[in-house]
Amino acid sequence: MIVWPRRPNLAGVAADRRPIVTLTTDFGTRDHYVAVMKAALLHYCPDACLIDVTHDVPRHDILCGSITLERAIGGFPPGTVHLAVVDPGVGTDRRILITQINGQTAICPDNGLITWAWRRLGPGRAYELGWRPQMSSHTFHGRDVMAPVAGMIASGTSIETIGQPIPDPLLLDLFPATTGSSMAHIIHIDAFGNATTNMDASALQSPEQLQFLIAERSLGRLRKTYWDAPPGEPLALIGSSGLLEIAVRDGSASDQLNLHVGDIVTIE
Amino acid sequence: MIVWPRRPNLAGVAADRRPIVTLTTDFGTRDHYVAVMKAALLHYCPDACLIDVTHDVPRHDILCGSITLERAIGGFPPGTVHLAVVDPGVGTDRRILITQINGQTAICPDNGLITWAWRRLGPGRAYELGWRPQMSSHTFHGRDVMAPVAGMIASGTSIETIGQPIPDPLLLDLFPATTGSSMAHIIHIDAFGNATTNMDASALQSPEQLQFLIAERSLGRLRKTYWDAPPGEPLALIGSSGLLEIAVRDGSASDQLNLHVGDIVTIE
Amino acid sequence: MIVWPRRPNLAGVAADRRPIVTLTTDFGTRDHYVAVMKAALLHYCPDACLIDVTHDVPRHDILCGSITLERAIGGFPPGTVHLAVVDPGVGTDRRILITQINGQTAICPDNGLITWAWRRLGPGRAYELGWRPQMSSHTFHGRDVMAPVAGMIASGTSIETIGQPIPDPLLLDLFPATTGSSMAHIIHIDAFGNATTNMDASALQSPEQLQFLIAERSLGRLRKTYWDAPPGEPLALIGSSGLLEIAVRDGSASDQLNLHVGDIVTIE
Repeated sequence: MIVWPRRPNLAGVAADRRPIVTLTTDFGTRDHYVAVMKAALLHYCPDACLIDVTHDVPRHDILCGSITLERAIGGFPPGTVHLAVVDPGVGTDRRILITQINGQTAICPDNGLITWAWRRLGPGRAYELGWRPQMSSHTFHGRDVMAPVAGMIASGTSIETIGQPIPDPLLLDLFPATTGSSMAHIIHIDAFGNATTNMDASALQSPEQLQFLIAERSLGRLRKTYWDAPPGEPLALIGSSGLLEIAVRDGSASDQLNLHVGDIVTIE
Repeated sequence: MIVWPRRPNLAGVAADRRPIVTLTTDFGTRDHYVAVMKAALLHYCPDACLIDVTHDVPRHDILCGSITLERAIGGFPPGTVHLAVVDPGVGTDRRILITQINGQTAICPDNGLITWAWRRLGPGRAYELGWRPQMSSHTFHGRDVMAPVAGMIASGTSIETIGQPIPDPLLLDLFPATTGSSMAHIIHIDAFGNATTNMDASALQSPEQLQFLIAERSLGRLRKTYWDAPPGEPLALIGSSGLLEIAVRDGSASDQLNLHVGDIVTIE
Repeated sequence: MIVWPRRPNLAGVAADRRPIVTLTTDFGTRDHYVAVMKAALLHYCPDACLIDVTHDVPRHDILCGSITLERAIGGFPPGTVHLAVVDPGVGTDRRILITQINGQTAICPDNGLITWAWRRLGPGRAYELGWRPQMSSHTFHGRDVMAPVAGMIASGTSIETIGQPIPDPLLLDLFPATTGSSMAHIIHIDAFGNATTNMDASALQSPEQLQFLIAERSLGRLRKTYWDAPPGEPLALIGSSGLLEIAVRDGSASDQLNLHVGDIVTIE
């Protein structure tokens, strides 16, 4: 997570910044779905600054969406609104969730999407959305329900007027590793083939003395940059999200080491 | 099509909303083409709120572009400007079209791209663009001609000052099904593998009593949501655009039923 | 390169246009990297109008990134800020470069990314960035260093306060062809399969009298548009960037002629 400095007093900057709203979905970018969801959002918040996180979460992959959403929350400043729609249960009675974590607000289905942000950056406050539009499709609550709510909140609507506090958002079986753990789990593989684990840098004791192994292959000690390993060699380092990461210099760790989500990194 | 409610009076919202301009092309996102087209548009309308619909229309696929453009028009509020460039005839004397449909304006080559919007949401008013820039390439009228025009219109330029009314935009052989039809045609397959037909929900009489078949396989009665079918089973439902859609719960109807654009759904 | 006309006096246009910042990276669009880089930029320039050029530069392909960056600079008006991050050397002591070319500013690693813009649109003025954030990762200077700098410059910060003039940005062995050259090199292949060369239209003498060949196959004389060739036939024309281009009407020159970056076009 980034510690946001106070914004400097800059020439030419408006006094009131536009509200930022990020979008994370599994809709892909071939169809009109993302655009019409943005239309619904802009209807309620014409001034929003919309930032796509990704629309290429694998279809219905709530775990991947959860990791991505956490990184979005970790990378944006207080006041940001995050809309995340990976929603295989659309049309069922699954709840819609509003959460406040880190001074930011996330709107998503209550299907576990909030898990990683809640565990790593939270816990926060959770609300079940009560508001519903007068008309809604049965298949596209991203456009019909969640985007309007994201727009309302970005425009200053109080969450209390549209939702009820709840104690228990649905959380998946996904945990940050704890201090002193001797292993970490791979939780995400990015487009470069780098594998992120659930081990936060802050949970590693005397990290410079540790050895890392994956599938019985030694990765040696922690490196600072990709360039600290020879070309084509695997390494362990702390990635830009503050998590232990397995990479290959100038290559794909995922391909070269045949890594998958759930694989275990041993720490000695 | 969405019925847009009056926008609520929201805290923090500017009195004048920024003009929204959407973009639909077959340019892909690997090259600089989309960006420099946006530069040309912003030159004429620096305040525009640019929304990408998609740049992944299959190359030169006017039919797919036409469906996508209609959904963009159907999903945005009055006042929106839509720029659509799927333009295999660039450099020939094909006309450039400005149309007004549904209180919105579309700029596109007059090659059939407007067909589905004209038939489903229109008819509207059509104009042939007369304006041309002082200099233009022969290969990129999206940047040199159409984007400037989209910017001008978004900035308030009157269409009458840059175009001539025409009665006859070029329309493809693509029609919404009529009330009482016993069959529908598949007109689009989305990234999820869902197959949209040309049958509008409003044209189905007593829809709850109907049976749907595709390639002699029964889909049973109309469902409300994907979850009304068992996992992996095909179903018919009304999609988020108000059109009859064939889907597979938690799967791809396109792959599983081997569906293609032009295939026929039988309605009994 | 486009000659930007004076912007017309348009109804509804704000007096001060928002600063435009373009983004060119090899990050892909599956992960959160682009979004959090934008967050860092917006922190320093909340009013920025962000335009994605592409995030699909092939990983670590500085040559392709360089061509793309030049086209972005060539396609945007004075005052634009360009952030380009293809950065295999992140974490080493490679310099970070600020350049001023054509009244625009580019921020990128000093690894050759600026080459094509420098040679075709420049030379310009170059600075080595001195500013560094209080905290930075070792693996993501796009977010931690370059995006903040792009935001600062877009907000009006003087380059002299954050960088030192240098005479010698790192340039790759990549040159525009000179007048009278009898050959051109393919420097880029776009998503349509069109192959761009390093030959500027202005360097061709009596272009209407020339013959073009690729791999001993004649392309005949220069055409004005794709439609001047029969369907499926290859042709040479001046593309929208003002460079000699090899294309196939309604097809992919890259596939059909088996073209690659570095191939030679003979001009007789």
